[in-house]
Amino acid sequence: MGADVRVCFVGDSFVAGVGDPLLLGWAGRLGGRALADGVALTAYNLGVRRQTSADVLARFTAECAQRLPAGTDRRVVLSFGVNDTMHENGGPRVDPETSAANLAALLERSAEQGWRVLMVGPVPVDDAAHNARTAALDARFAEICAAAEISYVSVHEVLLGSAVWMREVRAGDGAHPGAPGYDVLAELVLPHWQDWLARR
Amino acid sequence: MGADVRVCFVGDSFVAGVGDPLLLGWAGRLGGRALADGVALTAYNLGVRRQTSADVLARFTAECAQRLPAGTDRRVVLSFGVNDTMHENGGPRVDPETSAANLAALLERSAEQGWRVLMVGPVPVDDAAHNARTAALDARFAEICAAAEISYVSVHEVLLGSAVWMREVRAGDGAHPGAPGYDVLAELVLPHWQDWLARR
Repeated sequence: MGADVRVCFVGDSFVAGVGDPLLLGWAGRLGGRALADGVALTAYNLGVRRQTSADVLARFTAECAQRLPAGTDRRVVLSFGVNDTMHENGGPRVDPETSAANLAALLERSAEQGWRVLMVGPVPVDDAAHNARTAALDARFAEICAAAEISYVSVHEVLLGSAVWMREVRAGDGAHPGAPGYDVLAELVLPHWQDWLARR
Repeated sequence: MGADVRVCFVGDSFVAGVGDPLLLGWAGRLGGRALADGVALTAYNLGVRRQTSADVLARFTAECAQRLPAGTDRRVVLSFGVNDTMHENGGPRVDPETSAANLAALLERSAEQGWRVLMVGPVPVDDAAHNARTAALDARFAEICAAAEISYVSVHEVLLGSAVWMREVRAGDGAHPGAPGYDVLAELVLPHWQDWLARR
């Protein structure tokens, strides 16, 4: 075993794994793979239903600080955006400018704290108009992360083309897949996760 | 599906499931059983390594409030104590009087917020003197919960007599079992968990 690696997965209901009867979601699947690979990992799932980038920003530093003690390899995986682009009362819950600013603030706070970041982009749901807005935000998030030299895994377009993901979302509540959907998403992120963990 | 049930599992590394290659721990196993039984459950694991009752109290209200929105069936499962009774610098990290006061404060805050509570007592580790202190705290916690009419599941004595639990703890890091140990603990708590979920 190498370094004592602590990872907080922070974001929305997809991070929490809502819909997965195994209660793992993609985050739990990635954690299990790392343990099987011999990484001395402690994983904390801090996904919360309905949360936007603004909600995540409000609790991010306090919750992660509880779980990332000095002397460990401290890391954060971020994933949100689907709730930002959701329409309520005639507009998105968070407008794209604010979503972008929230992500930038999260990256800045992580850098200040010395927490390494991996960002996983927002997923598609069973609503074409909503997905179009999310795809635009995904592109924006990718640019922000590139500028900050943060690894960004864009999954939106691939999942839109995944028969398994889209079937699972429709068979679920229109947003959250069951276990096979989370399998697909975890496999997409896996090589990026492994590369990121290998970097010090 | 019935009510929209939200449960936060709050406590220490045993709650977090440290040592379990499946990343579920006893909390994840109980959550999976409830989903299989048709409960519309969202489970949040808020176990954190090394945390005492004082650490839990410091973050309890803020972290649970993020996850237990109005209009849902809001619940909390508490479990801590092994880190309180751990000796460091010649004494326990938290003295029993303070541990008791911290539990009482957690129950009071939960009542104020309208969060139903189930408490699971602290487990034994591979250290007889430490276990003796934990057993005394377990009895104290049971009294406090009885007085507050809160369901308390004492597991300490049964796990001390469990060949599987004690073997798993010794085979691990001296404190945390692997999957078979968490299976045993989850089975012990299961009937209490199911009764508690059935109560409104």
